[in-house]
Amino acid sequence: MNRKVKIVGVGKYLPPKVVTAEELDQMLQTQPGWTLKKSGVKERHYVNGETASQMAANAALEAINDAGLSLSDVDCIISGSGTMEQPIPCNAALIQRALNLSDSGVPCFDVNTTCLSFVQALDIASLYLEMGIYRTILIVSSEIASIGLNWQQKESCVLFGDGAAAVVVQKTPENEGSTVYPMKMETYSDGASFTEIRGGGTTIHPREHREETKQEFLFHMNGPAVFRMSSKRLPEFVGKIFAEANISMTDLQAVIPHQASGMAMRLMKRKLHIPDEIFIDVIENYGNMIAASIPIALYEAIRSQRIKRGDKVLLIGTSAGLSLGGIILEY
Amino acid sequence: MNRKVKIVGVGKYLPPKVVTAEELDQMLQTQPGWTLKKSGVKERHYVNGETASQMAANAALEAINDAGLSLSDVDCIISGSGTMEQPIPCNAALIQRALNLSDSGVPCFDVNTTCLSFVQALDIASLYLEMGIYRTILIVSSEIASIGLNWQQKESCVLFGDGAAAVVVQKTPENEGSTVYPMKMETYSDGASFTEIRGGGTTIHPREHREETKQEFLFHMNGPAVFRMSSKRLPEFVGKIFAEANISMTDLQAVIPHQASGMAMRLMKRKLHIPDEIFIDVIENYGNMIAASIPIALYEAIRSQRIKRGDKVLLIGTSAGLSLGGIILEY
Repeated sequence: MNRKVKIVGVGKYLPPKVVTAEELDQMLQTQPGWTLKKSGVKERHYVNGETASQMAANAALEAINDAGLSLSDVDCIISGSGTMEQPIPCNAALIQRALNLSDSGVPCFDVNTTCLSFVQALDIASLYLEMGIYRTILIVSSEIASIGLNWQQKESCVLFGDGAAAVVVQKTPENEGSTVYPMKMETYSDGASFTEIRGGGTTIHPREHREETKQEFLFHMNGPAVFRMSSKRLPEFVGKIFAEANISMTDLQAVIPHQASGMAMRLMKRKLHIPDEIFIDVIENYGNMIAASIPIALYEAIRSQRIKRGDKVLLIGTSAGLSLGGIILEY
Repeated sequence: MNRKVKIVGVGKYLPPKVVTAEELDQMLQTQPGWTLKKSGVKERHYVNGETASQMAANAALEAINDAGLSLSDVDCIISGSGTMEQPIPCNAALIQRALNLSDSGVPCFDVNTTCLSFVQALDIASLYLEMGIYRTILIVSSEIASIGLNWQQKESCVLFGDGAAAVVVQKTPENEGSTVYPMKMETYSDGASFTEIRGGGTTIHPREHREETKQEFLFHMNGPAVFRMSSKRLPEFVGKIFAEANISMTDLQAVIPHQASGMAMRLMKRKLHIPDEIFIDVIENYGNMIAASIPIALYEAIRSQRIKRGDKVLLIGTSAGLSLGGIILEY
């Protein structure tokens, strides 16, 4: 069932420190141009002391302001992030504190399905709004990828950047059309080991961190395997999304893919026959920001007026798990 | 809006290794009887090599079997746990793999609000069922607390145990009464530092683990502060739950509190004037199992027939954040 839900405000935050492809070429001692060619990322931002909840709060404040609302209007905070600031408590509670809402009682919870966490959080928020349980939900994806990169695995470490994106969602006013269609998701844990950080949870505690084990606590990606599985699964998956929504590619004014890598995005565009002019690709300025990638690209598309009210938009991507996920919006 | 949703099966799994209060007394070199008196926990289970997803799969299989269903009926898996097995991918994908559903495509995501993760996951699952998006949702809470305990903080380390609990939920058949009322939650991040593990996420990476910093990667609890905040907030909070559901304590056949500690549960019972005969207290055999505590207590209450079909039940607790959460069910 479609939900009459409207994105009423968007925000982003990027830590000031910029790292260029050239700098990474030097650091990794690769040929000049290698980083840009492999990743499609000219520059990305890295934190330099900022925490995920501080970045989240900045993005959230822009989104709330953009919506013409005030902090006191927010009645639920959902963190949709693939990384956690600290193991306990959840990100959303730390974001609430960073927003100076610590005494507000506003309910806070986290949703996590790695790079698709924002999309999943948006789907859940839509249900709460549709049922009239909350009126103004703040969804924030704030990611610090740089701390867990594996500099021995050149192909993956050049992809990522840090930052945060936020949206505020409300029920659509009676006379308007904004709609969130049901998310579709499929998880194939055949691919659970294709992208992972094995150490740092309950199986391998941080106390096991040593010179010999340090790789376990860093991000690993089997790029070719992800690539093969995505190629195989995505076309049929997107076909199902369109069929269930009774919508086709030609009805869309924008497709916002997870900004995984330049190569992954080219593959997706080709495999799904997505026209250039509706494909939102902002990776060169941000890198892969895990769950913040999709809302950052949405933000840019809205701010640059590539998406206008009434436009139909597909948010689509893959995430660790391996999961495929997509959601159609009428913005 | 209430949802016609039914818990159709329940399951649990406990790792075989049992640790008694006496053993902890010896290990902590306390007076005999100290551990039991402080915690209310006679024995708890600790993993000995089992992973959270293996435990989860065992609990899930019991729940699916209890429901008279088969694995192929499950069309969504939600992990509602306060701990993660590994940072990437999410718990639910690892649980899917442990259930040999890796090629199923069944969507998987995690919900986390520490000790209230199960209740939050149940609320979300109810929305998906009510909207007809999924038909059979598996919710699993699987927790390994033992790996992160701080043996220098005697008061908290004696409280916890490991294990998993699962429920299967479906839409209630037409002629039956099972209902899930909307969850109520309030988060006061004033108390975000009262219970925390600061190290292990993006602020303090596992590579910072050293002899001098090791405390950062362990669980810390400011018991008196949690106690004060809970005492102050809980009565009014529960009053709101009752008012919104138009239900009073005398309508309930059971109250299932988060099994936080013997002392916390006594406080809650007294503060909320909960009659002994409806208060489900199973902590002495399990300890605090984080988010698995509430569904384990629910499991025990169902198996022992303290809860029967048609009974009204309140699930209620506090969690790190600090959050208060509660949900009323007609079982």
